[in-house]
Amino acid sequence: MCSISRVKPVHRALALSLRLRTNLDGSSSAAALSRRFSPGLSSSVQPLWVSSRFYCARMAMTDGLLFRQLFEEASWTYTYLLADTDTKEAVIIDPVLETIDRDLTLIKELGLNLKVAVNTHCHADHITSTGLMKKRLAGLKSAISKFSGASADIHLKEGDKITFGRHFLSVRETPGHTDGCTTLVTGDQSMAFTGDALLIRGCGRTDFQQGCAKKLYQSIHEKIFTLPDHCLVYPAHDYLGQTVSTVGEERKFNPRLTKSLEEFVEIMNNLNLPKPHKIDISVPANLVCGLHHV
Amino acid sequence: MCSISRVKPVHRALALSLRLRTNLDGSSSAAALSRRFSPGLSSSVQPLWVSSRFYCARMAMTDGLLFRQLFEEASWTYTYLLADTDTKEAVIIDPVLETIDRDLTLIKELGLNLKVAVNTHCHADHITSTGLMKKRLAGLKSAISKFSGASADIHLKEGDKITFGRHFLSVRETPGHTDGCTTLVTGDQSMAFTGDALLIRGCGRTDFQQGCAKKLYQSIHEKIFTLPDHCLVYPAHDYLGQTVSTVGEERKFNPRLTKSLEEFVEIMNNLNLPKPHKIDISVPANLVCGLHHV
Repeated sequence: MCSISRVKPVHRALALSLRLRTNLDGSSSAAALSRRFSPGLSSSVQPLWVSSRFYCARMAMTDGLLFRQLFEEASWTYTYLLADTDTKEAVIIDPVLETIDRDLTLIKELGLNLKVAVNTHCHADHITSTGLMKKRLAGLKSAISKFSGASADIHLKEGDKITFGRHFLSVRETPGHTDGCTTLVTGDQSMAFTGDALLIRGCGRTDFQQGCAKKLYQSIHEKIFTLPDHCLVYPAHDYLGQTVSTVGEERKFNPRLTKSLEEFVEIMNNLNLPKPHKIDISVPANLVCGLHHV
Repeated sequence: MCSISRVKPVHRALALSLRLRTNLDGSSSAAALSRRFSPGLSSSVQPLWVSSRFYCARMAMTDGLLFRQLFEEASWTYTYLLADTDTKEAVIIDPVLETIDRDLTLIKELGLNLKVAVNTHCHADHITSTGLMKKRLAGLKSAISKFSGASADIHLKEGDKITFGRHFLSVRETPGHTDGCTTLVTGDQSMAFTGDALLIRGCGRTDFQQGCAKKLYQSIHEKIFTLPDHCLVYPAHDYLGQTVSTVGEERKFNPRLTKSLEEFVEIMNNLNLPKPHKIDISVPANLVCGLHHV
């Protein structure tokens, strides 16, 4: 009874659209999932403890940082809330329209002053709540990559910092899924919010919205895999219920990114995925902070 | 567009069965969710920063503890994996049958030696993978409360410790949802795995499986709310996509537990919830480590 067989059709389609869960990739985690093993049996998977540096503690050790991971079920999107526990200044990453009330309630209960709502890219699978959130929270600024083509108060570029209290997120441009994809990294490099560039044991698709497999491969290898092994990887989605990974794990176990560039491009160019069913609604809306259909 | 309106019927039924999301509770988070607010407007909700001690950093600071939260979509169950990063000894909490392959793959990749699979109680909404996991991992022990009525290798009681490497979980008996409910607390009291006793802004139902509202109220107040405010609360479920709370937050914002005992009992005794649709399958199976239907 494998979890992937229980994924609802819409989620499965999404999973297929963003991750390699097919037989196209012999070392995919789908294969791993279906592989029944017992301790002591030989396997092509080497335990991670071969290098203890791959391990992460449950969280990095930055003091005074409040962190919440939030899940939106329709699009299986993770939203992230980060705040300085002293100044209460906060940033939200990839907020979703359907969960705006939940998120604003939490922000209010925690007494936070939300400064910036940032999208890692112009999403195709859900509508952002950024625009509506700006209407509800005075002073809130929206942010997205300057290469996204989307309107926002702040257009981000490589090396920019989104500051909240004594903390900041630094911007790494990681195009490939779209031209305007960014990865946001905490100042101590203990956490990376990778959007749809690097997923847990997967990656974003590259066959629409300026997608380019070669660019994505280079982005991940040059901008994400150069982070410390213990850096926690928080993606925009996971369709198997995983919440976090690490750079070290993905460098070792990601079934696509452990391939050569040529193999990766070959895989990505032959996925033959269905078009995301919400793309014609989501992308136009997200180009204007999600307000298009509100 | 409130998130609760987007919850699928089965999830909504589950949510209703375990949490107070109705007008029975005027200060419920359902009401909070539907309340649109702007900064500066008065509200009955006091920001948490009134007491800075309510804040948690993103995670507690215990060194050498690997931690993963995993989600199972059919029953909206959270499974937790904890391990000592040096000895690789590990414990899994509330593993679900449908996600056994995902969980075992991760355990193998991380090179962990899973010592104990523990259930916080005899679940009514899903079948545990404990029994099947024991068949696949030599030496693995199952554990559950001695008051659960379920078979297991280890029957837990108040004050017991589940040790993995230099870490341990201590057992607090928290009956009320069932007689055999336990809350598992890390040695440094930075994390509490509350099962279906305390949920995020909610609690477990008390109208079947030896449920008793008075017992549950006392359990939460005496065994969970006595933990430090910053202690992270990891429940067995959350139906709104929240992943974690803190003792401080729940003491302040939980719409049921902030009531008097009498009010709480009155609320819980008048929920008139539908019977969980899987209870007749899940409970008999979980009484024998989930092997009943495998």
